[in-house]
Amino acid sequence: MKLHGYFRSAAAYRVRIALNLKGLSTEHLPHHLRKGEQCAPAYLAINPQGLVPALEDDAGAVLTQSLAIVEWLDETHPDPALLPADPLRRAKVRAFAMALACDTHPVQNLKVLNRLRQLGVPEEKVTEWAAWANREGLAACEALIAGESGPFCFGAMPTIADISLVPQLGNARRFGVDVSVFPRLLKAEAAAREMKAFADAAPDRQADAE
Amino acid sequence: MKLHGYFRSAAAYRVRIALNLKGLSTEHLPHHLRKGEQCAPAYLAINPQGLVPALEDDAGAVLTQSLAIVEWLDETHPDPALLPADPLRRAKVRAFAMALACDTHPVQNLKVLNRLRQLGVPEEKVTEWAAWANREGLAACEALIAGESGPFCFGAMPTIADISLVPQLGNARRFGVDVSVFPRLLKAEAAAREMKAFADAAPDRQADAE
Repeated sequence: MKLHGYFRSAAAYRVRIALNLKGLSTEHLPHHLRKGEQCAPAYLAINPQGLVPALEDDAGAVLTQSLAIVEWLDETHPDPALLPADPLRRAKVRAFAMALACDTHPVQNLKVLNRLRQLGVPEEKVTEWAAWANREGLAACEALIAGESGPFCFGAMPTIADISLVPQLGNARRFGVDVSVFPRLLKAEAAAREMKAFADAAPDRQADAE
Repeated sequence: MKLHGYFRSAAAYRVRIALNLKGLSTEHLPHHLRKGEQCAPAYLAINPQGLVPALEDDAGAVLTQSLAIVEWLDETHPDPALLPADPLRRAKVRAFAMALACDTHPVQNLKVLNRLRQLGVPEEKVTEWAAWANREGLAACEALIAGESGPFCFGAMPTIADISLVPQLGNARRFGVDVSVFPRLLKAEAAAREMKAFADAAPDRQADAE
């Protein structure tokens, strides 16, 4: 398999964690987002959205959207499971992941921040925007798992909730968010960081890290 | 079951379609987004994200995030299926839905547009922003199903791709996007509109429509 990614992309980071948890290795093909390499015609032919990640399976089929890729990995390589078995628990795990993957990350991604810059929004307001999106999303997530004992977001093992959380906390810190106000999220992050699958997927451990 | 929604919310509209396709009826509890009712303490106790939809099941459990709710409906009421059986096809359907639910809709929702207004962005640029987000997302989706014969996005029956597409096309038109440049998407929409489940879920058919 081949994973098209970028060391700093939170969405690619999610897929790296899932691959590691499943014990799967892939060829990593970096596309430098700040240089616009994701908009090169050769990459747009692979993913018309011009976003990373994209995963090419061994037969050459292309999968896009990080959470769809993670669900596919979970369906085709069920062990260890990244979603609980009970439908209601699955819905809660997915909702947590989507609060980040839908309502948080896309509002603070490079494409949107560049659009703000094009509108003449000054740089400190652009950073404030990204911090706001992260704070809103993480605050909702803190509330969503307030009743969960952990140590992971939902129970004793990592799920797609943790896979989505760890990269987002990295983004939040990068934009200057005080994440100490989210103790339950930090507890889940600490449990995740003890796992090699999470540690090896970190941006600064990737070959294209700057 | 109780569905917390708003007639014009694309995310609530997705869940209404899915409920109708499954033949399930719910009590509808509207929250007027433009009046900020989704941020009332009583609603935040139900959904800390302050977004619609939220679904309360018969036991009082709360589900949030439209696609997580739709997946839960599909798991607990499998007939008719809203996802194909094959894992790779499931991944493609989910990726299409997420291109809209993650990268398009949240970038043009009321919360983000209001934030732009707070930054002093003039109203015509706010509308241009929303149109841009819709054009980008729909153009990617048009490419994602270019090789699919249809008539629905993925085959002869509606999936979560169509459930995500129809509300988004409504938003795109509302923001002045010329959707005639997406003929494959319009073909899927035309097939969907012939189904009562889609027609009955339309914003102008809801009790809180203005």
